[in-house]
Amino acid sequence: MSPDELERHLRGMGAERYHNLHPFHRMLHGGTATPGQVRAWALNRYYYQAIIPIKDAVILSRIADPEIRRIWRQRIVDHDGEAPGEGGIARWLNLCEQLGLNRDYVVSTEGLLPATRYACDAYVNYVRDNPVLAAIASSLTELFAPDIHKERIAGFLQHYDFANDVTLAYFRKRLDEAPRDVRFGLAWVKENARTVEQQRQVIHALSFKLDMLWAQLDALHQAYVTPGMIPPGAYVPE
Amino acid sequence: MSPDELERHLRGMGAERYHNLHPFHRMLHGGTATPGQVRAWALNRYYYQAIIPIKDAVILSRIADPEIRRIWRQRIVDHDGEAPGEGGIARWLNLCEQLGLNRDYVVSTEGLLPATRYACDAYVNYVRDNPVLAAIASSLTELFAPDIHKERIAGFLQHYDFANDVTLAYFRKRLDEAPRDVRFGLAWVKENARTVEQQRQVIHALSFKLDMLWAQLDALHQAYVTPGMIPPGAYVPE
Repeated sequence: MSPDELERHLRGMGAERYHNLHPFHRMLHGGTATPGQVRAWALNRYYYQAIIPIKDAVILSRIADPEIRRIWRQRIVDHDGEAPGEGGIARWLNLCEQLGLNRDYVVSTEGLLPATRYACDAYVNYVRDNPVLAAIASSLTELFAPDIHKERIAGFLQHYDFANDVTLAYFRKRLDEAPRDVRFGLAWVKENARTVEQQRQVIHALSFKLDMLWAQLDALHQAYVTPGMIPPGAYVPE
Repeated sequence: MSPDELERHLRGMGAERYHNLHPFHRMLHGGTATPGQVRAWALNRYYYQAIIPIKDAVILSRIADPEIRRIWRQRIVDHDGEAPGEGGIARWLNLCEQLGLNRDYVVSTEGLLPATRYACDAYVNYVRDNPVLAAIASSLTELFAPDIHKERIAGFLQHYDFANDVTLAYFRKRLDEAPRDVRFGLAWVKENARTVEQQRQVIHALSFKLDMLWAQLDALHQAYVTPGMIPPGAYVPE
C-alpha cells in the first residue's frame, strides 16, 4: 500500500469498529443511561485515563530521538497537567465528583471492573512488548476521537442535568489535543510503515486498540446493563 | 536508621566511592589528559547523557501518582529541552563538537566502548526491574554532582584551551538542575524508606549507581590510559 492507501485502510477500520458504535455508547449518548450507569462508566473509564500517561512514558522510554521524544512528551503533559489540579486526569476526576462519586474511591480503583483493568493493562503491555512502530500506531484511534467527543458533548447537553462546563471540560479539551497528536502520529506512521511487514504491524496495532476500547464497553454492558451481573467487589450503583 | 541517619549513610557512601575519586577524573580535572583522552571521555559520556531521559521515562512509567510524575517529568525536559537545540543532550553534543568530534559519529555511538554501553544499559534495566523506591534512590548520586561539576569547570578553565561558555554550558546548567532534583529525590526517599528492607533497597541502589559511574571511568582508563589497549572498533584518537 502507498502511505495514503494505508491511511484510508486505517480510517476504514475505525468506521467499522470504533467504540462509538458500541450499544453502551449509543445508550450513554442517547440519553437512556441511568445515573448509576453513567457513574459506572466514569469510574471505569478513570482507569483508562490513569494509565494513559503510564503508557506514553513507556513509549517515551523506547524512543531514541530527543526530537521525537519532545513531541511525544506533550501527551504526558496534557494528562498530568502543568500544576496540581490541571490536566486530563484532574478533569476526569472533576467529572466523577460531579456525577456523585467519591474522588478517593475512584482513585483507589477499588470498585473497578477487573475486565477494565485487564484491558487497560494489556495496552501498557502492548506498547512495551511490540515494535515502536506498533506502539505509536496504537494511538491512531485519535483519528476517530473528535467525532465521539462532539457526539458525547451534544448528547450530554441534550439529555443530562449533569452536563456543564466542569463535566464537559475533559471532552472539550480533547477536541484541541487529539487532532494535534494524531497529525504527528499519522504522519510518522505513514513515513515509517513502508514494507508489508511494517504495514501489518500498524494494522495490528490499530486493531488491538479498537478491540481494547470495545472490550471496556463490553465489560460495562455485561455488569451494568445485563441485570444481576455486577461481579463481586465491583461498584454497585445505589 | 532514622531518615537523617539514612541520609548521613548515603552521603558517606559518596564521600568514599563517588567517581570524582577515580584516577581518570583526577587526570581530566588536573589538566594532564591529552586531547584524545578528553575526546574519548566526551564521546563515551555522551551515551550516558543519551540514556538519562530513557531511564527517567522508564521511572515515569512506573510512578502511579500524577503529582510525582509531574515533578519527575522535569528531568526529561532538562535533558531533551523545550525546543530543538536546547537541553542537556544538545549541550553535550556542542561540547563534543568543540572538542573536534564529528556530531553524527558521536550520535551513532559507533566508536563507543562496549563497556560504556553495558554500564549505561544496566542502569536502564535497573530502574525497570527493581522497586520504584530503588529506581528513584539510584538518582541520589546527584547529591555529589555539584561538587564534581564545580571542580570540572575550574579544572577545565585552568588547564584547557577548549574551556569556554559553550563547552562549559552543560556543567553550569547542571549546577542549577541537580540540587533541585536531589532536594525532591532525597526528601522522597527519606519519607518512603522506613523499614530495614526499604533502607537496604536505597543503599543498594546508590551502591549500584556509584559502581556504574566508576565502571565507565574504568573502561576509559583501560582503553585510553593503559597503552595499546583500545578495543577493536572503538574510537581511536588521531
